[in-house]
Amino acid sequence: MKIPVIEVFGPTIQGEGMVIGRKTMFVRTAGCDYSCSWCDSKFTWDGTEKHHIQMMEAEEIMQDLREKGADQFGHVTISGGNPGLLPQIDQLIDILHDHDLEVALETQGSRWQTWFTKIDDLTLSPKPPSSGMKTNYQTLDFIIDSLKQKQRGKCSLKVVIFNEDDLGYAENIHQRYPDVSLYLQVGNDEITMDNDQALSLYLLQKYEELIDQVMVSTILKDVRVLPQLHTFLWGNKRGV
Amino acid sequence: MKIPVIEVFGPTIQGEGMVIGRKTMFVRTAGCDYSCSWCDSKFTWDGTEKHHIQMMEAEEIMQDLREKGADQFGHVTISGGNPGLLPQIDQLIDILHDHDLEVALETQGSRWQTWFTKIDDLTLSPKPPSSGMKTNYQTLDFIIDSLKQKQRGKCSLKVVIFNEDDLGYAENIHQRYPDVSLYLQVGNDEITMDNDQALSLYLLQKYEELIDQVMVSTILKDVRVLPQLHTFLWGNKRGV
Repeated sequence: MKIPVIEVFGPTIQGEGMVIGRKTMFVRTAGCDYSCSWCDSKFTWDGTEKHHIQMMEAEEIMQDLREKGADQFGHVTISGGNPGLLPQIDQLIDILHDHDLEVALETQGSRWQTWFTKIDDLTLSPKPPSSGMKTNYQTLDFIIDSLKQKQRGKCSLKVVIFNEDDLGYAENIHQRYPDVSLYLQVGNDEITMDNDQALSLYLLQKYEELIDQVMVSTILKDVRVLPQLHTFLWGNKRGV
Repeated sequence: MKIPVIEVFGPTIQGEGMVIGRKTMFVRTAGCDYSCSWCDSKFTWDGTEKHHIQMMEAEEIMQDLREKGADQFGHVTISGGNPGLLPQIDQLIDILHDHDLEVALETQGSRWQTWFTKIDDLTLSPKPPSSGMKTNYQTLDFIIDSLKQKQRGKCSLKVVIFNEDDLGYAENIHQRYPDVSLYLQVGNDEITMDNDQALSLYLLQKYEELIDQVMVSTILKDVRVLPQLHTFLWGNKRGV
């Protein structure tokens, strides 16, 4: 079964989350079951780039990665959209592992796939109230339980924070899944700003505000608070 | 045996390395066997703050941490200077663990201590040519071998990069210790600049240059490239 791919790029650094800074290639799949108000990759699901979607075999994706990244990478990140919708990712993971590549993947955790257990760096990023989406905790509980029993790699939770409600949501998530590493990420609410320096300074200020809030919390003790390094570096540009 | 402490502060975030973004308290010890040309903490060894050094029992440090961080933290970072010079850190680690705190520590790896094996997040940061220091590989080999056999926590290597020679040094380190996670960090060569915004933008540019160099390397494949987030946030200020 082919995989709907909207872009393949790199090598670049992973700008956020559990493997922040990691040299990696990106494979971005099309399609999402969510429509977050502040999504920074709306083009993957809003139809505006339908004509860019390529249906690719896993082996073709591997070839494309080699064409773009040659022998300069050891890590591939599968992102979306929500790649967790696609059972056929299984095959891609196997091919990447056959090539001695580590695999990271991010999904909101709204659907379970058996291949989650094979991912080396799995980020579950349930969406806070500001997104307009509702978390299905039955599904998320099931995923996290299943991973605890069977995952070969590492798993983390990541929550993007735009406001106080989101922070409260993150506290609940942390208390519900205390054994899973939690990453808090500053929300970018200026996804159309094209002055990169102004954006960096603005997001740094937001980052500092989030740090201040988390530092005084007695619930959010064992957490990491991170920005998106790629927005500091390249603003709202794509494919970097 | 008492521990020479030059500052205790937090909670704040760890701005660099393997636990980047982690909410943590800092304990900074005085004294170093190195004198790196670009050291950003010269006050720990150059005598200028001799009068600030407090000789503290491990239990007193624990009390100080609780006074400053109350119940808001679950992680403590021991930094320097070179805390690897102090056998008596052993006791401090035990007390921190008794309080259910995780412990991170950074050292250049110029001396071995048996308590290295107890550290949860141990960063070995050998110094590249631009520092003016010389790496004793016999010692570093011994440390990394010993940790492989006995460490309970995680270990990583971190190399700060100021120039091309430093990057070559990092490549050697990576080839010598391929199984140890390697973090490359942008060197801050403007440690006296007091315009924080200008410093952030300058360091972002240096960060991008380093990324560009690493992305084309076929030796530096499995690495992370990171800035110092605290300098983006707080410039060259201390105690944050």
